[in-house]
Amino acid sequence: MDASTAVAADMPEPIDLRIDSDSLARHVESLGAIGAQASGGILRPVYSLAWRDATAQVAEWMSNAGLDVYRDAVGNVFGRLAGSSDVTILTGSHIDTVPGGGRYDGALGILAGIEALRVLRECGRPKQSIEVVALCEEEHSRYDTGFWGSRAILGLIDPQEPDNLRDQQGVPIGEAMSQLTLDPAQIASAHRRDLTAFIELHVEQGPTLEAEHKQIGLVQSIVSLSMLRIVVLGRADHAGTTPMNERSDAGYAAACIAREVVDLTTRLGAPAVATVGAWRVSPGASNIVPSHVELLVDVRHPDEAAKRQLVAAIGEAAHGIAKRTSVSAVVSTRADIPPARLDPGMVGVIERGIQAGGYSYREITSGAGHDSQLMSRHVPTGMIFVPSASGRSHCSEEFTPNDDCVRGAEVLAHSLYELAYE
Amino acid sequence: MDASTAVAADMPEPIDLRIDSDSLARHVESLGAIGAQASGGILRPVYSLAWRDATAQVAEWMSNAGLDVYRDAVGNVFGRLAGSSDVTILTGSHIDTVPGGGRYDGALGILAGIEALRVLRECGRPKQSIEVVALCEEEHSRYDTGFWGSRAILGLIDPQEPDNLRDQQGVPIGEAMSQLTLDPAQIASAHRRDLTAFIELHVEQGPTLEAEHKQIGLVQSIVSLSMLRIVVLGRADHAGTTPMNERSDAGYAAACIAREVVDLTTRLGAPAVATVGAWRVSPGASNIVPSHVELLVDVRHPDEAAKRQLVAAIGEAAHGIAKRTSVSAVVSTRADIPPARLDPGMVGVIERGIQAGGYSYREITSGAGHDSQLMSRHVPTGMIFVPSASGRSHCSEEFTPNDDCVRGAEVLAHSLYELAYE
Repeated sequence: MDASTAVAADMPEPIDLRIDSDSLARHVESLGAIGAQASGGILRPVYSLAWRDATAQVAEWMSNAGLDVYRDAVGNVFGRLAGSSDVTILTGSHIDTVPGGGRYDGALGILAGIEALRVLRECGRPKQSIEVVALCEEEHSRYDTGFWGSRAILGLIDPQEPDNLRDQQGVPIGEAMSQLTLDPAQIASAHRRDLTAFIELHVEQGPTLEAEHKQIGLVQSIVSLSMLRIVVLGRADHAGTTPMNERSDAGYAAACIAREVVDLTTRLGAPAVATVGAWRVSPGASNIVPSHVELLVDVRHPDEAAKRQLVAAIGEAAHGIAKRTSVSAVVSTRADIPPARLDPGMVGVIERGIQAGGYSYREITSGAGHDSQLMSRHVPTGMIFVPSASGRSHCSEEFTPNDDCVRGAEVLAHSLYELAYE
Repeated sequence: MDASTAVAADMPEPIDLRIDSDSLARHVESLGAIGAQASGGILRPVYSLAWRDATAQVAEWMSNAGLDVYRDAVGNVFGRLAGSSDVTILTGSHIDTVPGGGRYDGALGILAGIEALRVLRECGRPKQSIEVVALCEEEHSRYDTGFWGSRAILGLIDPQEPDNLRDQQGVPIGEAMSQLTLDPAQIASAHRRDLTAFIELHVEQGPTLEAEHKQIGLVQSIVSLSMLRIVVLGRADHAGTTPMNERSDAGYAAACIAREVVDLTTRLGAPAVATVGAWRVSPGASNIVPSHVELLVDVRHPDEAAKRQLVAAIGEAAHGIAKRTSVSAVVSTRADIPPARLDPGMVGVIERGIQAGGYSYREITSGAGHDSQLMSRHVPTGMIFVPSASGRSHCSEEFTPNDDCVRGAEVLAHSLYELAYE
């Protein structure tokens, strides 16, 4: 059976949930200008000035859409459409970006949520309340924490974290919050106990939907992810006077390790991926043998056991290379996120939303991590994907045609309607 | 014949040129505190505040030693002992440091020069003037220019350089000068036409003198050096959603290149050395495939032809790896400094200075670049080396016992005496 043409027997009466496509396109463009860099791409790390401006802008649009707007202790911004019961359906995504990131990653899920709630508001008061959220942090672009925003909502932030979590300049995340008048002592108040569902719309960030000419991706599961930190310690020496065989060159060892990470992951074959994206080489002068290198290694696999095997192989390779090259290497795990299987009930709701619009779709596994990954462990969660041009993401070329964005927002509106009105 | 016990037939009458060892030790310690970093080592790049403080301190010590002090247009600081003719013998070294550098590299040549001139001043007015100089820049730690100070003295700075030469923050070197009240329009006025000799005292920065228990190194020549810039261009992609075989990973390619630079230089064997000390990996986030990497590669060999062969082999390797890994690589030469053979007359003067003190010594090739390398092409130039503990340099562990420093300063004083008084 071709899923894209299937018609479910229990499909609800057709309702008119037409999305304002101009508004969505304008908002994508305007939000993409906040934090835009001369060199291309967007830089909007959590608690930066660009981040502050972006959250203020989103709050204004929520208000213009007729929603009640409020901000929680960590700076998540909510737009609420109050219902007649005391439970809440939540949609949204993150507002922070990676350095040089694109306009759609995270942003589209917020902006589509605002448009969906704008049209739902015209359907009258829902049974359950609906909220759209701009989650403050997901990309760990400034702090080595993922999911700061959704962790606050789920009550998963440790009381020591505001002091202990520091950025590269040594600024604790609590101090960064205080600078924007957010009180780290109030973080516990962000914990929500009224959520009955979470739906996140997101760009695919991969090539599958575009390649297969599918308009919507129905996410079944999210990949398992580990982030490793490999610190290589050698000895600083003069580049001109120290013979090659007397060096303890941390740069050389790190190069061998980075190469081996890619080579062994490539040998393992798809769907395993590993990336050495962040390098810090010290002291970093051309005429000094490097003494200290820090690498961050991102490892993903849909299968948890396969990911663990790959992580172990990378650790073994790093230690073997360190021994051979007369340096020391310390491998630690900075993040370890198991795969998420999304809630079958929510997948069904979204599938009916897709069918209501008559769109082509396919079931898909997300290779990227998302707030939904964490949310799904605590709240029934579903995800809607829209296509990414050429599969490009985390770069300025990230693009999704507005028609695809509108289709995704409409599926979201239908899904929220079923959850909150029926 | 054992050079260390040889006695030259034409050795001059013994004169008392005893160096103030306490003053030299105190100055090494005090100057080493300017720009000292909490993480260890010294950071004193040209035209920084630490650099400004260091030059002011050295000027004060020159003045206290009874010398006439002045500063030229680029900020070289001179202490002058005026003679009866209009030509000048120059000694000194550089005051800037590499990041995390030591107390002796550059600094010792200035401080030993001040002590040598202090004692020479008591011998009366010389026939030729003698000056000690704190050269403003040699390490290209802030700007990709070597020898900025000695190039000014030799009239080798291009009029466009003050505008065109920029640091990593984009600040032109002319603007950095202006911030410290140095006028870039006056650079040509720093050109000296009165120099008849240059002598530089420096730490060896290698292990030979210590290992062979020699007190002084009589430098015969300085190694040939090339600095290459390798820019690798790939494509930024999402670390989770881009299959390994669809990536254009500039980080992977750069790691392969850096590894090959070291491997092929090691295979070539001593005395060839090559170092990949500076890495810039962009965008530099753990969850983005690197799109852009810049490597600086320092290549040295005493033999010019052998260095050129190694440079060519590195370029070929980089292009081969780029092709194999689906990225592009651009290799350019940032600096190309031929080997320097020092003036035989000056080597003779220094050798007699060593013999006057009765010190053990050996002839030596410098593996490090020095201002003397450039000066020697225009002015008769000699170099005196003192031992480096364990050969360590360009690091906080850099050390030379004060007795060795004093012996070097005494050899310098004897050499200057022969040149200026006899």
